[in-house]
Amino acid sequence: MSRDDERFRPVIDIISLTYDLAFNPEYQEYLTAKSHLTGERINRFTHIHQNEQDLLIRQKMTRMLCQKTGGCIQRCVGIDGLNALSVVTYEIDHCKGTEYHRRFLRYLKYFQENDITACLAQTDAKGDRSKRPSEQDDPDLYLRVVEERSDGIVVRGCKLHNSMAPLADEIIVLPTRAMSEKDKDWAIAFAIPADAEGIKMVAKVTTPPKRKKLSAPIANIGDVECTTIFDNVFVPWERVFLYKEVEFAGRLASFAALFHRHSYTGCKPALTDIVIGTTALLAEYNGLDTQRTHHIRRKIADLITIGELVYAAGIASAYEGIKTPSGTFAPNPVYVNTGRRLAGLNIYQEFEILADVAGGLPATLPYEDDFYAEEIGTLLNKYIRRRSDVSSENQHRLFRMVSDMLCTSYSGVLMLGGLHGGGSPVMEEIGVMSQYNLNEKKRIAKELAGIKD
Amino acid sequence: MSRDDERFRPVIDIISLTYDLAFNPEYQEYLTAKSHLTGERINRFTHIHQNEQDLLIRQKMTRMLCQKTGGCIQRCVGIDGLNALSVVTYEIDHCKGTEYHRRFLRYLKYFQENDITACLAQTDAKGDRSKRPSEQDDPDLYLRVVEERSDGIVVRGCKLHNSMAPLADEIIVLPTRAMSEKDKDWAIAFAIPADAEGIKMVAKVTTPPKRKKLSAPIANIGDVECTTIFDNVFVPWERVFLYKEVEFAGRLASFAALFHRHSYTGCKPALTDIVIGTTALLAEYNGLDTQRTHHIRRKIADLITIGELVYAAGIASAYEGIKTPSGTFAPNPVYVNTGRRLAGLNIYQEFEILADVAGGLPATLPYEDDFYAEEIGTLLNKYIRRRSDVSSENQHRLFRMVSDMLCTSYSGVLMLGGLHGGGSPVMEEIGVMSQYNLNEKKRIAKELAGIKD
Amino acid sequence: MSRDDERFRPVIDIISLTYDLAFNPEYQEYLTAKSHLTGERINRFTHIHQNEQDLLIRQKMTRMLCQKTGGCIQRCVGIDGLNALSVVTYEIDHCKGTEYHRRFLRYLKYFQENDITACLAQTDAKGDRSKRPSEQDDPDLYLRVVEERSDGIVVRGCKLHNSMAPLADEIIVLPTRAMSEKDKDWAIAFAIPADAEGIKMVAKVTTPPKRKKLSAPIANIGDVECTTIFDNVFVPWERVFLYKEVEFAGRLASFAALFHRHSYTGCKPALTDIVIGTTALLAEYNGLDTQRTHHIRRKIADLITIGELVYAAGIASAYEGIKTPSGTFAPNPVYVNTGRRLAGLNIYQEFEILADVAGGLPATLPYEDDFYAEEIGTLLNKYIRRRSDVSSENQHRLFRMVSDMLCTSYSGVLMLGGLHGGGSPVMEEIGVMSQYNLNEKKRIAKELAGIKD
Amino acid sequence: MSRDDERFRPVIDIISLTYDLAFNPEYQEYLTAKSHLTGERINRFTHIHQNEQDLLIRQKMTRMLCQKTGGCIQRCVGIDGLNALSVVTYEIDHCKGTEYHRRFLRYLKYFQENDITACLAQTDAKGDRSKRPSEQDDPDLYLRVVEERSDGIVVRGCKLHNSMAPLADEIIVLPTRAMSEKDKDWAIAFAIPADAEGIKMVAKVTTPPKRKKLSAPIANIGDVECTTIFDNVFVPWERVFLYKEVEFAGRLASFAALFHRHSYTGCKPALTDIVIGTTALLAEYNGLDTQRTHHIRRKIADLITIGELVYAAGIASAYEGIKTPSGTFAPNPVYVNTGRRLAGLNIYQEFEILADVAGGLPATLPYEDDFYAEEIGTLLNKYIRRRSDVSSENQHRLFRMVSDMLCTSYSGVLMLGGLHGGGSPVMEEIGVMSQYNLNEKKRIAKELAGIKD
Repeated sequence: MSRDDERFRPVIDIISLTYDLAFNPEYQEYLTAKSHLTGERINRFTHIHQNEQDLLIRQKMTRMLCQKTGGCIQRCVGIDGLNALSVVTYEIDHCKGTEYHRRFLRYLKYFQENDITACLAQTDAKGDRSKRPSEQDDPDLYLRVVEERSDGIVVRGCKLHNSMAPLADEIIVLPTRAMSEKDKDWAIAFAIPADAEGIKMVAKVTTPPKRKKLSAPIANIGDVECTTIFDNVFVPWERVFLYKEVEFAGRLASFAALFHRHSYTGCKPALTDIVIGTTALLAEYNGLDTQRTHHIRRKIADLITIGELVYAAGIASAYEGIKTPSGTFAPNPVYVNTGRRLAGLNIYQEFEILADVAGGLPATLPYEDDFYAEEIGTLLNKYIRRRSDVSSENQHRLFRMVSDMLCTSYSGVLMLGGLHGGGSPVMEEIGVMSQYNLNEKKRIAKELAGIKD
Repeated sequence: MSRDDERFRPVIDIISLTYDLAFNPEYQEYLTAKSHLTGERINRFTHIHQNEQDLLIRQKMTRMLCQKTGGCIQRCVGIDGLNALSVVTYEIDHCKGTEYHRRFLRYLKYFQENDITACLAQTDAKGDRSKRPSEQDDPDLYLRVVEERSDGIVVRGCKLHNSMAPLADEIIVLPTRAMSEKDKDWAIAFAIPADAEGIKMVAKVTTPPKRKKLSAPIANIGDVECTTIFDNVFVPWERVFLYKEVEFAGRLASFAALFHRHSYTGCKPALTDIVIGTTALLAEYNGLDTQRTHHIRRKIADLITIGELVYAAGIASAYEGIKTPSGTFAPNPVYVNTGRRLAGLNIYQEFEILADVAGGLPATLPYEDDFYAEEIGTLLNKYIRRRSDVSSENQHRLFRMVSDMLCTSYSGVLMLGGLHGGGSPVMEEIGVMSQYNLNEKKRIAKELAGIKD
Repeated sequence: MSRDDERFRPVIDIISLTYDLAFNPEYQEYLTAKSHLTGERINRFTHIHQNEQDLLIRQKMTRMLCQKTGGCIQRCVGIDGLNALSVVTYEIDHCKGTEYHRRFLRYLKYFQENDITACLAQTDAKGDRSKRPSEQDDPDLYLRVVEERSDGIVVRGCKLHNSMAPLADEIIVLPTRAMSEKDKDWAIAFAIPADAEGIKMVAKVTTPPKRKKLSAPIANIGDVECTTIFDNVFVPWERVFLYKEVEFAGRLASFAALFHRHSYTGCKPALTDIVIGTTALLAEYNGLDTQRTHHIRRKIADLITIGELVYAAGIASAYEGIKTPSGTFAPNPVYVNTGRRLAGLNIYQEFEILADVAGGLPATLPYEDDFYAEEIGTLLNKYIRRRSDVSSENQHRLFRMVSDMLCTSYSGVLMLGGLHGGGSPVMEEIGVMSQYNLNEKKRIAKELAGIKD
Repeated sequence: MSRDDERFRPVIDIISLTYDLAFNPEYQEYLTAKSHLTGERINRFTHIHQNEQDLLIRQKMTRMLCQKTGGCIQRCVGIDGLNALSVVTYEIDHCKGTEYHRRFLRYLKYFQENDITACLAQTDAKGDRSKRPSEQDDPDLYLRVVEERSDGIVVRGCKLHNSMAPLADEIIVLPTRAMSEKDKDWAIAFAIPADAEGIKMVAKVTTPPKRKKLSAPIANIGDVECTTIFDNVFVPWERVFLYKEVEFAGRLASFAALFHRHSYTGCKPALTDIVIGTTALLAEYNGLDTQRTHHIRRKIADLITIGELVYAAGIASAYEGIKTPSGTFAPNPVYVNTGRRLAGLNIYQEFEILADVAGGLPATLPYEDDFYAEEIGTLLNKYIRRRSDVSSENQHRLFRMVSDMLCTSYSGVLMLGGLHGGGSPVMEEIGVMSQYNLNEKKRIAKELAGIKD
């Protein structure tokens, strides 16, 4: 699949929006920021968060953009990875006397000046899940250094689940997990142009079915995933941001997750917004009052509760955020993780609610063509009507959208992505627990029980 | 789409099984029965249940067949509709002095002797959900009689969600709801050859993606749904089984639902069996012990609990079943409805469990072709490996199946069908409540509270 | 607390019912059985199940009795333990050439002839949960043999959660878990008169608040739990049924759980019945139609679904039960365990539904006395009225019952007992998984995926 | 029950804390505020919120205080009611030219200067739930004006669920619902000294069982609820804040709910904190690692997710709060209601988690006395031990606390209060939906579907 394959079109259009709207007065305030490096006005998708407001604006912007496109805005992951690097390169230098942070800032300047779109390559192939990187039969199952040269390093391995990688300018490569002393060769982070020699991208594109006549924004979205193989790829030292400092691999992985989960508190509520609106519209087109029909009211209230609490978690994570020594402002992990966890635990339930209110038609809706066939088309349009004040076309449009949202490969990817993207429920359990002050809660319990140690 | 369209192939193959296996010694005992009409050995899919054992065998047979095909066995609905007609035509005759039951038995004899496969057309287009059939702007929104002739009737309307209709010999048409006195013209039931004049079928076929090399049974299944339009169709009197006896329309609708939901207590556990097996295999291929890894153990136990309780509900519905005056043995509605309700309330959760254990790969798995491409194929097979004792191909096969089960239009239809097919959760609420002796429970509460009225 | 302590009265009255009703024509058929030993008519609470019907009748009987008393019928555990012994003593003899089964049968004859009520003492103190019996600091933390004599053995230890022990004639003592070779001294089972020397019972009685005027059956129930300490208790050989055959300890523990969980499929639905009736009555007294008020309909349907599926699991466990070599008929563990698991996972939810429909009054209802106080009583009765056709007293009776069911120590014990009694959700996970044929499900998945090993 | 009844002691002690800690340097910053009326330093429980910070501090203060007391801090409701009055009296005056706000401010000054503790009396007896106030058979079933005099009004009726009313200085009386034109006599709000003539309080006190030796803070808490009967009570005009302006009754009721639910985002997380700490301590005392034991980890993560998202909702409600025309700063209703709803939907589940980890012992734990009885005490202390490094007393203390939290009338009241206090799930459905911009979400759906009206 070449980079200008027609199947990439929907995702290219969405990414373009993040450039175009930066000049649109309505969105400008959200889509641009002042670089803390240069003081210049830059695209917010290249910005390192400096304060609470940056997080809050970023979250709101993400929700707005995703409501507009009807799906993922695609451009978050790269800058989420850079925010993580901004924090951790500073820490490594502070501890080790290295110069990663200076390298990072130089790269960031380039990134901001050229308004780069980057993907994030983090998840490794991982092989046998019960073994560490250095214990695998095939050492390439985690990406690793295979050669150290005076001008840089050569890496080999394979990164999975790289959203929109075939459309990115650059790839940010980070470790996927904590490493032990034996895993030195696997503890690496770097940035690389997406078309560097030795990079082989295997793309998987998923879109709703193409429409011929009933064109609609919801039909023009899509998901591009990539298996990115690094087949002896050279990385110059200037672009290497972690190299064998094993004790920082886990920290970098976890900061990347943190910033990406914060992005998620903006995009996930937008997905819920779409499900809410569609569910409410289904009820309306069926003549059901959303306040008085109790089972509809409850289901929509369930959706609102999920969406708004995930959003509230993002707000709280900014409000209780932390200024790191690097100057980067990080969201509070407790709120980010509980918010992401709520979202992950409920994503299938959200689609179930939509399905429940929709009835069986999304699964059995005749093909678009049949609605435009000579005789059959008239009959199908006759029989699809429900309320007399809603036209056959609008009724058809609504169910076509719901069918796309429930019964297509795209809907399957949406659900699975909603479950695992940025942190599976099990990963969130670990995330929630590892950063929570459980001892303070045990102290409270002991005090109330009268237990003195 | 013509009847021999290649897209129908998977479903035709599945239906063929129900004929072939009737001669297979291993299945014969299940797949055949003794006709209560003729005493002849007949295919069980043409049999009217006579006793508890018939229900139990039917349930077990359905589970076995669906485990074998990996999906819906397709041939249940017609005979479920006939079982309902056997009960209610007898009742109408008893009350009204009509002769529907005699007609029915004659038709049944034909049905058994010719080993007919029939679909069931029950759900009407329904138009405005807040209005009864006779109140609709367009009277055709529920199927109705438009002309009465000496030799029969002419009907018009549209039936939705008719599974495998384009492949059926006959269509059994039943009312979809209770009718009031004003809805006489809509209170009709009959049987009709699927190719009768005026019948227009609009088919929708959903299958997993075709495979080129990695052939597997799971890829050879599919779902055929149909919007069946009756555009002035003539039905001879001998095939009319309800005609304007409005007080029996709801009863017929509800008996059809009852028998079909009983079928569901056989097929739904088979779907769960497949999800259980696949989930357990995923865990095994990841090196996770299903007993010792608690979150895996809990999830599989959840699946087993759902599947086996639905099955238990079927068993209990037979054990506490009812011999109706017609001689037909009907399952107990309390168990059938609570079983179906449990299934419907959990179908999305079952796929969520599979998704949870699978991780993100089913959404990002490269295309089958890529695995067989010259250079990339070798690399993809290198990186897909997990446990060293599981070959790349088997690992690939497993994830290809899971991807088909989670991220395709077929999986979307499976979920939606699992929610709504034969009875949505809301319909099941009504079903559960309408046949339950709530007064007896209130009596118990009053007695315990010391309340004397 | 002496055996005739007034606080035991409610439980004594309930146990008496199991004797009295055996002579009541309405219950006789259920409450008696034909002994397979003597052919005599015996109380069913002393019977060893011989066939499917025995299990089905026992289940139905239990539900009826618990509906009548409004709570636990108390007398199940002893005979559940004996059913387990009947199976396993036979197996031990068969393997080891011992004579436990003969001893057991002799004891059973005594038990049946004297219409004995026995409690079951199974759960040990258990000390450190991460250690086996033989590894504990204090060897008494699991009950063990401390001396072997020619005429019997001397045991020491402590058994927890022994329901109604202070009122029992006999105690059946079984191991609580599987044992390893080193745990020989802890692998014991026996029967002992409840007043044997060295037995020290520490009783805990929980009842709803006593009433002065508003007497009602629901106020006359209670729970007696006991911590039973065996302080060097002598057991004659004739009453020892397992002695150091470590490989049968786990099997005995698990059969006892199996039979007791089967009992649970009878009593638990009765508790749900009471919650259903009370919830429906609350709705009725509030003027809410249980069919048309959707949130009420859903909640009651939830309760019915839970209660009837637990009951269906019991029926299925009998229908798919197993005739063991001993002749004892055992319920199918898959259904018993999934049924018990569903119950445990939903017990708090059932009370939540009742609480939800009840509103806040059960927590703030004035004391009974206040309703009978001179001036205040009149005012309270004035203000408690809701529907004009329901008297103040009946309204009061209903809320007094609900308050007892939700806001008393008794209700807390009911919920906790519903969660843990006979098998916690985690134990049920293990139970479900350990007896399930997971390999057969993996085989199905492999076949569908085209995986050949 | 007189005001100095010993049973009130626990609640009196808790209220006293809110006075004492205002002078404690550690709490002063939270417990005091600057009056916007006088500029004086006042107790925060008498303060009207002026800005985002006020809401945030109030929320944090509430969590701290409830962690400290182990339960409800008791003093919130009165000032929540006054905050509502501050908003709505201003609005009425603005629309109607009345002078309620001036009266209110004068009362507030008195309230602040005297550091008053007030209860809130809002819920009426309500009689037949299907009828409005003016339609009831007995007009007193909602509190109403029975006489208008030159110096004030005389009211009659009954308010339910008035927490800590018998210990309050003043009662704030507000309408419980929206009123129609016919309900004029029932549309009233006022403040009244708690010992005014004609007020009859019927108290219900619930506490954990008293302890003799094992004293602990958790045993010294309690709940005082009150049915407050207004038997022709005179209210001077200066204390009347709503009088027959029916269109503001619902608004006042809903603002009171809003402010009280905001308080709830502080206290409810504290209750969850206690459950978290206790659950974690149970696991620790059982030797289970809270990270590595997956089912424990999941359950604690569930608790944290609930508690912290409720807290996040409070933060977001402040951050997105609204400065009303009166100057009072109100929390955003969407976040307050979704937060309260999450809490209500999960309260039983939280206690279920605690119960699940605790096992059966909280229900069967022998009486405190038995642990101190001569011989039995030694044995009970021997057998209660688990980990060798945890003393019998501490093990006993922990289970005594858990037993108090799960199996007492107090725990029942805690659960029911957690479900209904300040807003039942059904009320929250209404709350969530009535203030949500559903049309905006439908607009998004239409745009994506290509629907143009």
